[in-house]
Amino acid sequence: MIMRTEPLLLTPGPLTTSITVKQAMLRDWGSWDSDFNQVTAQICDSLLAVANAQDDFVCIPMQGSGTFSVEATFATLLSPESKTLVLMNGAYGKRAATILERMNRETVLLDMGDYLPPDPQEVDRILAEDADITHVVLIHCETSSGILNPLEEIAEVVESAGCELIIDSMSAFGALPIDAKTLPFAALVSSANKCFEAVPGFGFAIVRKTLLKECQGRCVSLSLDLYDQWQYMIKTGQWRFTPPTHVVAAFSQALVEYQQEGGQPARLARYQRNRDRLVAGMKALGFETLLKDRWLSPIIITFLSPDDPAFSFTAFYQAMKQRGVLIYPGKLTVVESFRLGCIGQLHDEEIDTVLSAVADACQVLGLTAMTTSQSNQQNITNTAITV
Amino acid sequence: MIMRTEPLLLTPGPLTTSITVKQAMLRDWGSWDSDFNQVTAQICDSLLAVANAQDDFVCIPMQGSGTFSVEATFATLLSPESKTLVLMNGAYGKRAATILERMNRETVLLDMGDYLPPDPQEVDRILAEDADITHVVLIHCETSSGILNPLEEIAEVVESAGCELIIDSMSAFGALPIDAKTLPFAALVSSANKCFEAVPGFGFAIVRKTLLKECQGRCVSLSLDLYDQWQYMIKTGQWRFTPPTHVVAAFSQALVEYQQEGGQPARLARYQRNRDRLVAGMKALGFETLLKDRWLSPIIITFLSPDDPAFSFTAFYQAMKQRGVLIYPGKLTVVESFRLGCIGQLHDEEIDTVLSAVADACQVLGLTAMTTSQSNQQNITNTAITV
Repeated sequence: MIMRTEPLLLTPGPLTTSITVKQAMLRDWGSWDSDFNQVTAQICDSLLAVANAQDDFVCIPMQGSGTFSVEATFATLLSPESKTLVLMNGAYGKRAATILERMNRETVLLDMGDYLPPDPQEVDRILAEDADITHVVLIHCETSSGILNPLEEIAEVVESAGCELIIDSMSAFGALPIDAKTLPFAALVSSANKCFEAVPGFGFAIVRKTLLKECQGRCVSLSLDLYDQWQYMIKTGQWRFTPPTHVVAAFSQALVEYQQEGGQPARLARYQRNRDRLVAGMKALGFETLLKDRWLSPIIITFLSPDDPAFSFTAFYQAMKQRGVLIYPGKLTVVESFRLGCIGQLHDEEIDTVLSAVADACQVLGLTAMTTSQSNQQNITNTAITV
Repeated sequence: MIMRTEPLLLTPGPLTTSITVKQAMLRDWGSWDSDFNQVTAQICDSLLAVANAQDDFVCIPMQGSGTFSVEATFATLLSPESKTLVLMNGAYGKRAATILERMNRETVLLDMGDYLPPDPQEVDRILAEDADITHVVLIHCETSSGILNPLEEIAEVVESAGCELIIDSMSAFGALPIDAKTLPFAALVSSANKCFEAVPGFGFAIVRKTLLKECQGRCVSLSLDLYDQWQYMIKTGQWRFTPPTHVVAAFSQALVEYQQEGGQPARLARYQRNRDRLVAGMKALGFETLLKDRWLSPIIITFLSPDDPAFSFTAFYQAMKQRGVLIYPGKLTVVESFRLGCIGQLHDEEIDTVLSAVADACQVLGLTAMTTSQSNQQNITNTAITV
């Protein structure tokens, strides 16, 4: 049982962390000291091991939010001659495209709208028709909708076409399996405050060493230069600029707890259990998911807003908050929705707390007809996933 | 009396923080929630008040280390047509120049070497002779040597020349007085983990509103775009990308303790007292400062290494560490030195602990002749500050 005086975070990161992870921040560290350097080195080694990437890859942490690490990876790896296919089906795919456009890197966009998965055959065709494309960006789990994109199939066609894959696995790495020995990719980017259940403040990139070696001086941003960060760490054991020492210490403790739980398979199993319990409970209350079961990730679930004039997201959010649960708004353009995360220190007990809070909130709002909005259903039918 | 199980940090940030600042991190926050938005808003308002800049300036926090905020400020404010005079007398001035060169902004460098202050008259002359110069960058306190640069005098000549001043006040703001009503500047950059005595994870820029308004779409980095961060905060109250929530909460508590202590004047007084006690104690032990008293900042002091073959920085560092004190290496090119910080949760008691540790360490190392290195003295005489 976790001691808790604050709300449960049903958001996909920042998320609810253990008290012991937070307690690891009750100490000040010298960022120059060898004790702290060891913490950093162990974290990087552990992350490489989670991806089975010890031999040919390096792990480079980067200060800031996960987006900073995504941008650092693009800015360091992509030369001015590169051309990148961005597979978009939500806000994070769009953000990747925006980052590339800002830094004047040529892009080709495959926009699947709010939640449809990219079709590997279509990706194959695009790559075959445009020999200038050098890189492909895929969002592993697109938290806008909660869809788990078909990583393995996409990786296969990208490799066949002789291109390099950059995976934004922000909200998936640590829970979804990644095996660098069998999955071909150039770089995978993730963050401290997602499936490793630590606190926000830095991200990291796992990059194929042979590629990174060629990237000296390419990044126009000094702060976000992954190559420089890598070389400086090799030389000194330190981060180039002041690291978020307390956040790094918390991550180190989170990794201990990750291993104690049983690593990636155990974490995935718990998140899947959370998802299944959450979806079953919500369906029993009359809610429906945006996506069919096949596409539901164990990370975050989008639920359609109920077809009832008494429902408003703001009122629902406040009613949930009063019951100690923070939820996430929807991020879709065509349907009204909200989202519940499955990740963080959530177990059966917390999921049941959430479901009770939803039941209470529905009653308080006076929701009588707990069926999904007709207009929402109409919109979904129009853009249905054909699987 | 502070509860402490970890070493005292005599480093100029990360530094020793109060236990109550760290305890503020024992809670998870929803980064989307209005409670957290209020914390952010209050922090920005408080920082503007410290600089007496409420009317014409905005305060924009930025994830990452202080350098990220410096780069964000340059990348957002400086147009491709800008030309920037960088006043360098140490590592942070050099870093400012490197950032500008990376982003292809034209620079003029006035390099004073390791520790000499820039001469306002020389700055005036450079600006008069080159009408293309639009901006000047000054490091307020250059922590490489510990020198407090002549901010007011430089600001005056920059304004007279019709240029804009960007102040890197990383390690000085909060302790040294800044009055935006009388000091002319375009932007001032600082960080959470310096004189406000919070933990590292974000920085901030205080920028004149009329200038920032003109900077939409200028920053080639999406992550580091201060304009976007500002606009998004106005619209939503939120940080654009995931903030380091726990670090932000710690900063909020640190600001409470800052006000309780008596704000900027009280903090400056304590740091000056720390400096004076430290310098007097070290002199009594036979050490000498690099700079003459006039140039000693109340932030960090460079001491010359003793003229004794028994002295090595590594051995001294380890001996100090064993006594619970982490010190900083020197950062000078011509003389052997080390540095001791005056900032953080250090009071008379802690300064005395440091001085005892130094005395013990000297004994353990077998330092007999506690006089400053002859060759060091020679080097200093050659490049002496003529004041």
